[in-house]
Amino acid sequence: MTAARPAEIRVSELFGPTIQGEGVLIGLPTVFVRTGGCDYRCSWCDSLHAVDSRYREEWRAMSTEDVWREVTRLSGGTPLMISLSGGNPAIQPLGELIGRGHEEGYGFALETQGSVARDWFADLDVLVLSPKPPSSGMETDWDAFDACLRASGDKPLVVMKVVVFDEADYAYARAAAARYPQLPLYLQPGNHTPPPPEDSDAPIDIDGVMERMRWLVARVTEDRWFEARVLPQLHVLLWGNKRGV
Amino acid sequence: MTAARPAEIRVSELFGPTIQGEGVLIGLPTVFVRTGGCDYRCSWCDSLHAVDSRYREEWRAMSTEDVWREVTRLSGGTPLMISLSGGNPAIQPLGELIGRGHEEGYGFALETQGSVARDWFADLDVLVLSPKPPSSGMETDWDAFDACLRASGDKPLVVMKVVVFDEADYAYARAAAARYPQLPLYLQPGNHTPPPPEDSDAPIDIDGVMERMRWLVARVTEDRWFEARVLPQLHVLLWGNKRGV
Repeated sequence: MTAARPAEIRVSELFGPTIQGEGVLIGLPTVFVRTGGCDYRCSWCDSLHAVDSRYREEWRAMSTEDVWREVTRLSGGTPLMISLSGGNPAIQPLGELIGRGHEEGYGFALETQGSVARDWFADLDVLVLSPKPPSSGMETDWDAFDACLRASGDKPLVVMKVVVFDEADYAYARAAAARYPQLPLYLQPGNHTPPPPEDSDAPIDIDGVMERMRWLVARVTEDRWFEARVLPQLHVLLWGNKRGV
Repeated sequence: MTAARPAEIRVSELFGPTIQGEGVLIGLPTVFVRTGGCDYRCSWCDSLHAVDSRYREEWRAMSTEDVWREVTRLSGGTPLMISLSGGNPAIQPLGELIGRGHEEGYGFALETQGSVARDWFADLDVLVLSPKPPSSGMETDWDAFDACLRASGDKPLVVMKVVVFDEADYAYARAAAARYPQLPLYLQPGNHTPPPPEDSDAPIDIDGVMERMRWLVARVTEDRWFEARVLPQLHVLLWGNKRGV
């Protein structure tokens, strides 16, 4: 009789180190483990290649040790922050990886919409909950979101990040912030020109992103919403839609 | 006999709220009090209008109450973060202003090269020490820098920020980080096209800034310097050299 094979992690991309381009850890050198598969289908998803099962042939089923070997190679064995993103990384078995990395002094930040709670959220260093506003076409299940918060306990730094394309999204962000006043809040202007999944280096409307960023800054300051932090996707400004940087 | 007039603050600009464009508070809505006068003359200074005494006619001598009235007007009386910058704000009498703002729930972040220590540094919420690298043409007095650290005590969040134009600056930043391993470190690519003081909206070499940013990210990750955070001047990307935004 053979032992059960440990659960495998579906990985769409594994790259870095490069700087984190978004949110609370912006600018920090990071290795990215982008998992494949998502329970959402946001209209403006900028990582469809890691979401749509049409691209699952590009995903690799990796054991924790496979992933760990690759992270170690990329980082040269020097501890750094590892971003677990997706897709929705919460649907992957990542608890063992987090334990493995912590043994060696690495940190873990997970980014998820907050639709699936996992007990290993409590082992993270940073949990970024990114509920999706109306423009995504998705509906937020706040009970599931609350379950994610409960699962994280008091251990990781928990922050909220909301992508904003328009006034309806902005109103959603304000309501979300009012619901969770304890969570530091990051607003991020949306990118109307996400990369088509077949093209890993498609052109991007930088001027549009910057215009939306200026609008968002004006909106926040007019409303005297002084706790919100407004940040663009820095990697998009630096490298456009190019993957792996 | 009349009481001595309280010390006045020399103010070059007072504007906002807009987002903080740099460093640890990047993205946070902020009112900026830019003081006039500096004990340094960095070759690439991007705020010469607040440094060079040729522009002192534009500076206003304001009492704490004058400044406070203006901050209150700009913020609509809603507490937010106030950035004390310059020039070198450490040469201004700002202790009373900090006390006044704290009474009303405002926060204070001060940005200085670390050449002049003041006992009121301990009353700040955030102290950004920004020693100037070789390209500035200035020489760092580390004893004065140490005095700033001592003055701040354990109260404010103290971080270090170093502008980097070239390899010599980068080596300086590494040495500074090794000297103060306890300080979170922010690296910022330099702007080779600072605004001439006579022109508040001069063109800027954004491509050059972005190129230097990409170089800096590569440099940091090649060296596995994973604690350093690399951030551009976001306001420059959004608004160029324009003042008051």
